[in-house]
Amino acid sequence: MELHSIIVNATILTVDDSNRIVRNGAVAFNNGVITYVGATPEDLDPFDEVIDGRRRIVLPGLINTHGHAGMSLLRGYADDLPLQTWLNEKIWPWEARFTDEHVRWGTGLSLIEMIRTGTTTFVDMYDHNEAVADMAAPSGMRAVLCCGMIGSDNQNVRDRKLADAVSFAKAWHGQADGRITVMLAPHSPYTCTPHFITQILDKAAQLQLPVHTHMSETKWEVELNVQRYGCRPVAHLHKLGMFERQTLVAHAVHLTEEEMDLLADCDVRVSHNAISNLKLASGVAPVPQMLARGISVSLGTDSSASNNNLNLFEELKMAAVLHKGTTYDPLAVPAETALRMATRNGADAVFQPDLIGSIEIGKQADLIMLDAGRANYQPAHNPCSHVVYAANGLDVTDTIVAGKFLMRNGELLTLDEERVMYEANRMVGQLMRGD
Amino acid sequence: MELHSIIVNATILTVDDSNRIVRNGAVAFNNGVITYVGATPEDLDPFDEVIDGRRRIVLPGLINTHGHAGMSLLRGYADDLPLQTWLNEKIWPWEARFTDEHVRWGTGLSLIEMIRTGTTTFVDMYDHNEAVADMAAPSGMRAVLCCGMIGSDNQNVRDRKLADAVSFAKAWHGQADGRITVMLAPHSPYTCTPHFITQILDKAAQLQLPVHTHMSETKWEVELNVQRYGCRPVAHLHKLGMFERQTLVAHAVHLTEEEMDLLADCDVRVSHNAISNLKLASGVAPVPQMLARGISVSLGTDSSASNNNLNLFEELKMAAVLHKGTTYDPLAVPAETALRMATRNGADAVFQPDLIGSIEIGKQADLIMLDAGRANYQPAHNPCSHVVYAANGLDVTDTIVAGKFLMRNGELLTLDEERVMYEANRMVGQLMRGD
Ligand SMILES: [Zn+2]
Ligand SMILES: [Zn+2]
Repeated sequence: MELHSIIVNATILTVDDSNRIVRNGAVAFNNGVITYVGATPEDLDPFDEVIDGRRRIVLPGLINTHGHAGMSLLRGYADDLPLQTWLNEKIWPWEARFTDEHVRWGTGLSLIEMIRTGTTTFVDMYDHNEAVADMAAPSGMRAVLCCGMIGSDNQNVRDRKLADAVSFAKAWHGQADGRITVMLAPHSPYTCTPHFITQILDKAAQLQLPVHTHMSETKWEVELNVQRYGCRPVAHLHKLGMFERQTLVAHAVHLTEEEMDLLADCDVRVSHNAISNLKLASGVAPVPQMLARGISVSLGTDSSASNNNLNLFEELKMAAVLHKGTTYDPLAVPAETALRMATRNGADAVFQPDLIGSIEIGKQADLIMLDAGRANYQPAHNPCSHVVYAANGLDVTDTIVAGKFLMRNGELLTLDEERVMYEANRMVGQLMRGD
Repeated sequence: MELHSIIVNATILTVDDSNRIVRNGAVAFNNGVITYVGATPEDLDPFDEVIDGRRRIVLPGLINTHGHAGMSLLRGYADDLPLQTWLNEKIWPWEARFTDEHVRWGTGLSLIEMIRTGTTTFVDMYDHNEAVADMAAPSGMRAVLCCGMIGSDNQNVRDRKLADAVSFAKAWHGQADGRITVMLAPHSPYTCTPHFITQILDKAAQLQLPVHTHMSETKWEVELNVQRYGCRPVAHLHKLGMFERQTLVAHAVHLTEEEMDLLADCDVRVSHNAISNLKLASGVAPVPQMLARGISVSLGTDSSASNNNLNLFEELKMAAVLHKGTTYDPLAVPAETALRMATRNGADAVFQPDLIGSIEIGKQADLIMLDAGRANYQPAHNPCSHVVYAANGLDVTDTIVAGKFLMRNGELLTLDEERVMYEANRMVGQLMRGD
């Protein structure tokens, strides 16, 4: 039986349907579920634990809807290169040598960063997924894990990959008190044959799992799709039946008006990875146009190899400023919209809109607290503006998932930071020496 | 007589001509001046103070080449509005009511933020400049202060503004052991008449001071210049003789090829304010094209009203990723270039290239230390990449100007943070109530 806890005297950004903000407010939770949101009650006797929220802003934990946690081992290994050189000569040769052990400690680095900067749920698409799950489960994070399936030329290899992904899904979907769920993930239309994609979609239908893929990240990839299949990636995936499944696509940078209409019609969810798209010179996704069509666009960091950190507050601010500047529209992506992208739309992206994404009674207590007693929150004009435009991910003091503190007053409670950093560097040292 | 101090066992990013990086390195300084950079010496007896630099990256303090510190009182007061509505209905009416006292505490907020996020020199263009200088001097920061002169219709008012700016320059240029210097600043070609600009330029010539102005920030302003004067802002200022003075212009977003050629020929320095330009929907400055011509482009935050913080690490990363994405060139603004923009080019921007901007013997000891023992610096592949792409301004543990610690191990030593934040909120409360 968990404690009935209450955070009091805080500024609460609920991100509910009316974007309610409660000053001197309180949030209570019990057994991982939010039981109260509103004014700080006079009578605190019913609560087992009272948490001081003075000078704190409380908001829903951020949701990072696209990444590759294990790739943190590649942070800073190669930058400022053309994409194909970067992938073919740097990233892929190293990744080919990764074992479970590498992915374990790379994922550990990512978990530390995400918890420290206020992410409570993350989507991961990678390999060695048992290692990812083994790290994620005890960390207390909410995770949506995907085996990223790249189609090889060999049918046997493809069959084995799919069988492994299915085993992984059966083993992990719904585990860790439901905190871990699974999607099936063909890596992309340019790395998977149509046949392989339909095989994966059949399994997704059978297991009733959503699907996740990279789509239309670069011009090169769109043109390749046209050359190979006579159509652009959106039409291609649509024809293959992908959008009959619950679908989350990452990037969606290069889209026509018609493609956006189709994505909206099919209720496809989009993960916007602005910093990675900029750093890899892929371009700027048409986010205002997608939002105008009612497409649910959420935020992702992609990996530390192309970002190079997992601080979702950077994506939050980037989403709010980038599209204003590139479309010359100061009204594009207002602060409230950006915050919704990082929370509510994140919940949509992982198909858990009733469980997470806002501070409302009955939802999971996935909460973060910001130290709003710092200079960058003064004067206290507008907390939503401050969270989006002025905040820093390292202002997060407390990260709570399902009512459990993963970080409290800046101290990580579920991960051994020194050990993770030591092992991550050790694994990389081995790779560098060629051990 | 100051101590002879040495930081030992650190990773030193010198940003010297060869971008030398010293691992397990040391930096010594005495009387505010760097006396040694290199391997950690065996014999530390000659030093009065030995500072542990293990797990630290040491780099030159960052230089913020455009801002309005007093405007931090307006942080979050108005966002997501069209520029002219924002200025005319929100920003300017409030600013008109500012007194010295408002500017004092607004500047205090800005100083806290800048010191905490590793800025050691800042350029400020504002009003009530005595209040700015009164706060800046005891803070220990290096400051380049400008009275921002907006030309009124009234010749007497203009004459008084210029006389005040000249008095301010005479009183403050070279003060605080040389840490405070002054430029003369016509606010912009669209807010000053040609006559007023030439008056200011005459004074700048007489006093041998550089000049600073806003230029070509918005399309609207460029078109207005053409309507009024029959030429674009660059030609206009050139004809008025501005570029015969040492000139720093902020923004330079809307430039033709010919304008860039002229700026390069005249050795005009440019302050790139990417986040403010995006947030205000002004556009993206052609930074790679300017750099290719040899124009010295540095980084500025602009004010907290349009940013909404003064964390120059955000500008550093933005400069490195934005132009890759908008030009589809992954080689645009590599990490080393971005770091140079934030340091060496900043020293150029304030016409102090021999004094600050790199860690070299004889230069001022303006240094910052980052906690590279955090997860976002692992694995330790490449410290320059990490500083640009993975670092967070709040990783700064120590900020040193002219050999003096302004922040040490995260503790501010020259400013009373609680007092500043209290007074800033009090001043805003008064304005809101209309006191
Ligand atoms: Zn990805
Ligand atoms: Zn400005």
